[in-house]
Amino acid sequence: MKMNHHYGELKASYLFVDIAHKVAAYQEAHPEKEIIRLGIGDVTQPLAKCVVTAMQDAAAEMGTKEGFHGYGPEQGYPFLKQAIQGYYAGRGTQLAEDEIFISDGAKSDLANVLGLFDVDNTVLVPDPVYPTYVDDNVTDGRKIIYGRTSQENGFLGMPDDSVKADIIYICSPNNPTGAAYTREQLKAWVDYAKKNNAVILYDAAYECFITDPALARSIFEVEGARECAIEICSFSKIAGFTGTRCGYTIVPHELEREGMNLNKLWLRRQTTKFNGVPYVVQRAAAAVFTESGMAEIQANLDYYRQNARVIADALDECGVWYCGGKNSPYIWLRCPGGMKSWEFFDWLLENCGVVGTPGVGFGECGEGYFRLTAFGDAEKTKVAAQRIKAAIQTL
Amino acid sequence: MKMNHHYGELKASYLFVDIAHKVAAYQEAHPEKEIIRLGIGDVTQPLAKCVVTAMQDAAAEMGTKEGFHGYGPEQGYPFLKQAIQGYYAGRGTQLAEDEIFISDGAKSDLANVLGLFDVDNTVLVPDPVYPTYVDDNVTDGRKIIYGRTSQENGFLGMPDDSVKADIIYICSPNNPTGAAYTREQLKAWVDYAKKNNAVILYDAAYECFITDPALARSIFEVEGARECAIEICSFSKIAGFTGTRCGYTIVPHELEREGMNLNKLWLRRQTTKFNGVPYVVQRAAAAVFTESGMAEIQANLDYYRQNARVIADALDECGVWYCGGKNSPYIWLRCPGGMKSWEFFDWLLENCGVVGTPGVGFGECGEGYFRLTAFGDAEKTKVAAQRIKAAIQTL
Repeated sequence: MKMNHHYGELKASYLFVDIAHKVAAYQEAHPEKEIIRLGIGDVTQPLAKCVVTAMQDAAAEMGTKEGFHGYGPEQGYPFLKQAIQGYYAGRGTQLAEDEIFISDGAKSDLANVLGLFDVDNTVLVPDPVYPTYVDDNVTDGRKIIYGRTSQENGFLGMPDDSVKADIIYICSPNNPTGAAYTREQLKAWVDYAKKNNAVILYDAAYECFITDPALARSIFEVEGARECAIEICSFSKIAGFTGTRCGYTIVPHELEREGMNLNKLWLRRQTTKFNGVPYVVQRAAAAVFTESGMAEIQANLDYYRQNARVIADALDECGVWYCGGKNSPYIWLRCPGGMKSWEFFDWLLENCGVVGTPGVGFGECGEGYFRLTAFGDAEKTKVAAQRIKAAIQTL
Repeated sequence: MKMNHHYGELKASYLFVDIAHKVAAYQEAHPEKEIIRLGIGDVTQPLAKCVVTAMQDAAAEMGTKEGFHGYGPEQGYPFLKQAIQGYYAGRGTQLAEDEIFISDGAKSDLANVLGLFDVDNTVLVPDPVYPTYVDDNVTDGRKIIYGRTSQENGFLGMPDDSVKADIIYICSPNNPTGAAYTREQLKAWVDYAKKNNAVILYDAAYECFITDPALARSIFEVEGARECAIEICSFSKIAGFTGTRCGYTIVPHELEREGMNLNKLWLRRQTTKFNGVPYVVQRAAAAVFTESGMAEIQANLDYYRQNARVIADALDECGVWYCGGKNSPYIWLRCPGGMKSWEFFDWLLENCGVVGTPGVGFGECGEGYFRLTAFGDAEKTKVAAQRIKAAIQTL
């Protein structure tokens, strides 16, 4: 028996464990202080009413002989795939129904899609970014190179012709930086991918926060993307499904490599190794795209957007550089006073009672930066923003 | 870009497609005939009332700020893991809570667990069996050997010391044969696995059909199994969750290979590449283990058991050899008159208007055998059994 020793190469991540320890120690030393958490990447607003009703109705159906649903299509029910088709068509992107695969969330598909590719490929991962992209490839044994980003390029890396990569991760709007690509910038990535015969894995989990019409909400808004990209998306942020688990992956018919059609391969993978998303969850997800669903969802998104604005305004007033916050729930700020990420974490906790996430936890290029999120309670976010402004102004 | 060419080595499975074509052609030629389907492996009884209620209540919770659940533990909520602990303890098997990992079903975990093992391992798969075990390993490129079974050994293969395997699949009660191992038989497998440093992947999806106290419902009823086995189980058959998607995998603390602890590895795999099962589904699954839940579930299981009995009685009356049917929803019969599997399929459709599944579709050793299932409607199953008996008696 030979184990997969690549698991031994994973770096243990203590980021959120270390944060929890520091916060607990601080709270113990200062039991009177109210700590406000702006570090969380999880949503907090409840599911929309029409989503709850759709789920309850579907559960009732499942309790009747006539309405019972057993095994469904592994790639999702037509009613949900058609609703997603409509969501994309509404912004001018045409997809075929069988290019859409319903999943239990972006995290699963981001890992599982790698099974279509040989381990002998080079993977380009932006720095800083969601750490799972790296771990998913370390466990498979792929070579990873990093696309370094910085304040100078607005934390939006652009292709470098001297670098050869086979699999390219793009997360736009990015977690943690909130930076989002324009269609023109993405076009450069599409051209690079086509020239290098690479495949782009495009993580669009935060597309719903985009309001600026110059920014792409899907890579398929870019010409040529259908020949080189897979898009992975989720209901987690648009509809608060982090605990309800539904997402979707788009694999265009045109995407072929080494004579293999990736849409057919992914269908084969999913029908072999997955058994679909709960019927009740698919019904709930479809309700998101109804008229009342979209209205309720937008009200939730506006709640988070307002939080982002409150934080961004406070940083503007103290002249702190940041990106994100406008088309993203994340505000990525340069630590004031030249502080390093963890220094600022301690300073912010000590001086404001506010918890955020040290940027260096998302990659080396995050050192000296810090992530705040808009997913908190509105009132608490206002208090936090005022405390941050007051404290930074004393620096 | 190099693709995973092992996908090209998968054999296309036309089994259920071919069956559908044959049935459609027959129905078209004989529009007046009522066709009864005893080929399905999917449940048909609705979810239990208390399961539906638990799901609806959980959905209502998710619609409130206080009751909302975002990201949950990837390995499942304690309330469900504790309920499963109680289910096992009730039959004398003690498990630690953190040995239980909640999944979206056995199919996902059966595929994903292979990621813990190197591709350079030899896999022993029984023949006949659920075809996915083979496909999961073909796509990874592992060497597969088959454990041939036959009527002589009751379709229950026993270890052969001249065969060297690293990963051993056991499905008990087996799909498609319905044959189930006693604890003594499993002990031989555990001894073999320990001697060969192998790991057993034990698929217990049909354990709920076992009533004979000599048969094992979990491999962990067998001494030594904690050092060599992973058990994969599901709510699909016990509670009709084929469209609701929940299962669990048990990885004991004692299981170590090459200095790696498989419980810790699986935790790392799941926290990296999976984001848990919907909160509402976990609440629904927990309701299965309440007093009223177990009562409702048993009524459903008894419905299927009665169907199995009706079919088995008919076969007994015509002297047809079969196994399964008593501790399994599957009846695996020897095709009468020396017919081959597909011959009997055509004969059964033509003479009885009954659809089943040719045994050869589950492996070479299934040739000459045939699977009928107990998941159909009770009245239709009775009619089918009468037709089968009458037709076989004319042979």
